[in-house]
Amino acid sequence: MTSSPTATTPGRRIVVVGGVAGGMSAAARARRLDETASIVVLEQSEYVSFANCGLPYHLSGEIESRDALLLHTPQSLRAALALDVRTGSRVTAIDRAARTVTVTHADGTYELPYDALLLAPGAVAVRPPVEGLDHPAVHALRTIPDLDALTARVAALPADGPRRAVVVGAGFIGLEAVEALAARGLEVALVELADHVLPPLDAELAPLLADELRAHGVALHLGVSASAVTSTDDGAALVTLSDGTRLPADVVVVNVGVRPASDLARDAGLELGARGAIKVDADQRTSDPYVWAVGDAVEVTQAVTGDTGPVPLAGPANRQGRRAADAMLGRRTTPQAPVLGTAIVRVFGLTAAVTGASQATLARAGVEHETVRIHAGHHAGYFPGAEQVHLVASFAPDGRLLGAQAVGREGVDKRIDVLATALRAGMTADDLAELELAYAPPYGAAKDPVNMLGFVAQNVLDGTMPQWTVAEVDAVMASHLVLDVRSRAEFAGGHLEGALNVPHTELRDRLDEVRDAADGRPVAVHCASGVRAHIATRVVLAAGLDARNLSGGWISLVTTRPDLTRTR
Amino acid sequence: MTSSPTATTPGRRIVVVGGVAGGMSAAARARRLDETASIVVLEQSEYVSFANCGLPYHLSGEIESRDALLLHTPQSLRAALALDVRTGSRVTAIDRAARTVTVTHADGTYELPYDALLLAPGAVAVRPPVEGLDHPAVHALRTIPDLDALTARVAALPADGPRRAVVVGAGFIGLEAVEALAARGLEVALVELADHVLPPLDAELAPLLADELRAHGVALHLGVSASAVTSTDDGAALVTLSDGTRLPADVVVVNVGVRPASDLARDAGLELGARGAIKVDADQRTSDPYVWAVGDAVEVTQAVTGDTGPVPLAGPANRQGRRAADAMLGRRTTPQAPVLGTAIVRVFGLTAAVTGASQATLARAGVEHETVRIHAGHHAGYFPGAEQVHLVASFAPDGRLLGAQAVGREGVDKRIDVLATALRAGMTADDLAELELAYAPPYGAAKDPVNMLGFVAQNVLDGTMPQWTVAEVDAVMASHLVLDVRSRAEFAGGHLEGALNVPHTELRDRLDEVRDAADGRPVAVHCASGVRAHIATRVVLAAGLDARNLSGGWISLVTTRPDLTRTR
Repeated sequence: MTSSPTATTPGRRIVVVGGVAGGMSAAARARRLDETASIVVLEQSEYVSFANCGLPYHLSGEIESRDALLLHTPQSLRAALALDVRTGSRVTAIDRAARTVTVTHADGTYELPYDALLLAPGAVAVRPPVEGLDHPAVHALRTIPDLDALTARVAALPADGPRRAVVVGAGFIGLEAVEALAARGLEVALVELADHVLPPLDAELAPLLADELRAHGVALHLGVSASAVTSTDDGAALVTLSDGTRLPADVVVVNVGVRPASDLARDAGLELGARGAIKVDADQRTSDPYVWAVGDAVEVTQAVTGDTGPVPLAGPANRQGRRAADAMLGRRTTPQAPVLGTAIVRVFGLTAAVTGASQATLARAGVEHETVRIHAGHHAGYFPGAEQVHLVASFAPDGRLLGAQAVGREGVDKRIDVLATALRAGMTADDLAELELAYAPPYGAAKDPVNMLGFVAQNVLDGTMPQWTVAEVDAVMASHLVLDVRSRAEFAGGHLEGALNVPHTELRDRLDEVRDAADGRPVAVHCASGVRAHIATRVVLAAGLDARNLSGGWISLVTTRPDLTRTR
Repeated sequence: MTSSPTATTPGRRIVVVGGVAGGMSAAARARRLDETASIVVLEQSEYVSFANCGLPYHLSGEIESRDALLLHTPQSLRAALALDVRTGSRVTAIDRAARTVTVTHADGTYELPYDALLLAPGAVAVRPPVEGLDHPAVHALRTIPDLDALTARVAALPADGPRRAVVVGAGFIGLEAVEALAARGLEVALVELADHVLPPLDAELAPLLADELRAHGVALHLGVSASAVTSTDDGAALVTLSDGTRLPADVVVVNVGVRPASDLARDAGLELGARGAIKVDADQRTSDPYVWAVGDAVEVTQAVTGDTGPVPLAGPANRQGRRAADAMLGRRTTPQAPVLGTAIVRVFGLTAAVTGASQATLARAGVEHETVRIHAGHHAGYFPGAEQVHLVASFAPDGRLLGAQAVGREGVDKRIDVLATALRAGMTADDLAELELAYAPPYGAAKDPVNMLGFVAQNVLDGTMPQWTVAEVDAVMASHLVLDVRSRAEFAGGHLEGALNVPHTELRDRLDEVRDAADGRPVAVHCASGVRAHIATRVVLAAGLDARNLSGGWISLVTTRPDLTRTR
């Protein structure tokens, strides 16, 4: 808390700019804390408090009713919370000296005074440098009008004619759009500039999503950008990619990211951060003591790296709104936590989720770390229906958790939420090993995958289990004996060229054979997931040889390097 | 770590007594750490490393293959881990001075020397004071032979004759047995001495399970015990209860709890705790520096209350085994965490889970606390299929989380795991409010139920939202104006006698009416779950009246006090 002014007199005038997530959370909390305040919410669109995260699911038809997305109306907000919600009302200027905002709406322009101003302007879509984005087939998917237009376009497509979509941008919303359009029976092509889908996910897990997309008929164009949208002879769009590919499309959805809608704040002279987001303190207060800001437009601090910038996520926006209201009204505020960037997406039958720093982020930030990988059942393996959760987590040399990512069909959200909680608490590999999670066969395992991550990280960090990684495979194959300790049948189904197959159950009796084959070279052990090879690595080390275990085993290897598989 | 001896010379002799969960975890970890050790596992039964938590699910048929429960055999453990596993081998004595154990097996008795001894004897079923427990219909469900006998008994019942089961004890395994027997087509009666099913669950949530059990045809006999098992004329069992009820039964399953199997340790003069469990230090070492102990037989410290006693849970047992192996072999050990008692059970379509201290435990221990309740969708309400998670959590006056419980159809395991992690980290209501959990419509909400728990607890603890509870309802009805702010339709469907119905959307315009009706009395506000009544309570407080919000609202009220509902 600061000593700056708060609007603490009865009848104080609170003005909120932006009536979705963060803005509406702030307005509602302010009302619950102060029955006497005048609270005006100014929203430039016609919709407040709509479920923006739900838009793709109405496009798909999974959320049947459009009304379900409209959580509140100005009328319902007046009735429940005595809020004065004004839609179609754009704030064009802030006079900080006079403490007024200029509001433009269909009937004209007026000045509105405030004692406390909250800015929740959100973000605006980045417009990529693509020619022809004004083509009528091109759509966005961020607002109710976007959704209406896109839904109408899809509905107007002939049932028996071509139904082709191109989605540009394979981020969270892009992937949701892909699934929705596929659910509507469109053939979908997905274009992504990065070399893998869902760029916040590390490259090693992304192929799992790519396979799932392809299995549902989605054509992937990775590492390329859209360069132009033109028209075909029959009026459809033709999307030309940077590699020359031309994709005819009846619908094009562009979603290449957002930037903070901070023009109003900038024009008012409020301090912005390097990436154009509004700077705020721990109470969400801007550089003007009478102005607060929340949501996609504000600068936050990233946990782990300490980087600053905007993060367009609904959860933090809502909590910032609540905190801003508390601060505005002079209440005790909760300590603002750095943003972990926890996020999740469904991609057909798969779920992908992330929290904290990715390996790429850690590498960019120069943060020393060890990354471990497991492929564990989402519940006890002896209980029917166990699905593999592919988990990757990074730890500092002192054992502190830095970030985690997961992909799988079941139980992914639970593990990422547990890891997000652990990350927030500053937990270490030791702490993960000791977590006491709920176990009965339908739900988990006596050693939950999160415990297993802790165990593996302990073994890696204290040197019990030296590991090698898929990224090193070419160098390893050139300089090591690769010892594949899977069964003969698994080996026959695919293995690395030159690998020696000694099933782990035979290893103690065949150590001489391993020693001869190694011929002085270090031994690169692997099994399917890392469990059997852990035992084997310990056996080989005890025999006096240099040995390491492949992190994530064969499953991790074939995910990213299927080219290396030999079945001879 | 202590300065006591560890078996640190090559070829050290490790003897493990008990070859399931904790014992086998220790043996496997010891081998992975030390290839040179001689490791002997002595198991009195014919089975090692079986999935004891899976037994009810094979009885039900959900786990089809009995072999699926047998995770390892002595042969597979020899092959993979070079363990010398001896089944049918009972340890009858420990000579601590000579460092030997006496082993009895079918072929005779022998002495086995050790450098380090690990005791993992588990627990034995408590035999309740019921006459006639030797009746052939009476079964337990703790071991593979128990399962085989029970499965055979059920299979032998005539398909067209009476198929009646009585389950004595409604704890975790008792409830799983009920579901399994019902799945086999038996009519099941459940007998529990406590006044509600699943005694570790607080009484206020248990009726949800009771309703689910009844909905699946299970007859409940609560607050009574079985006093005798006799035979009917046709050879079935007749279970007589303490209230005189007589229940004919073709199968009786008795599961009224376990006690530590600590006789061997006691006879050897090892220190036991007050409840008969083996005392161990943070490294799982007993009062003898050459003897370690893990699992159901050892004393642990309960988090929150600091109580000590045994806790029969697979997760802690496995981790203790790993820690004991580390300690035995002189490795760095992870700090032993107090036990939270996290546990979960499926009861037909419902899940119930607990972590930390229950309200009853806190009351017994005299720990000051506030308990809050929410009924929140397991994912965004606008996304189809949202199921209510009934969450109860207790907090210390300083905001520290003390325990949580949940019941619901979906998403219960995830919330309890997050709360178990938060509890382990010492998190507060503020911390829960700030948790950054994964949100997309199919998985959660921008304000996850766990965040909501934090928000509500903040409001209760800082006085923003004074609350009243269902436990006070009789006194409140006698002394307060009950203000029901639900809609007219909800009110018509059931309400408290004498309640004034003012929908929350009309409250600000009808405050005079409330003031008149209150006539100087405090106002007890409620809605369905507590959300609308929170707003209403703030409005009434702002009007200068004394007001409190019913914790958990009408949903919590009718769960425990359906007798109070009026529809006139």
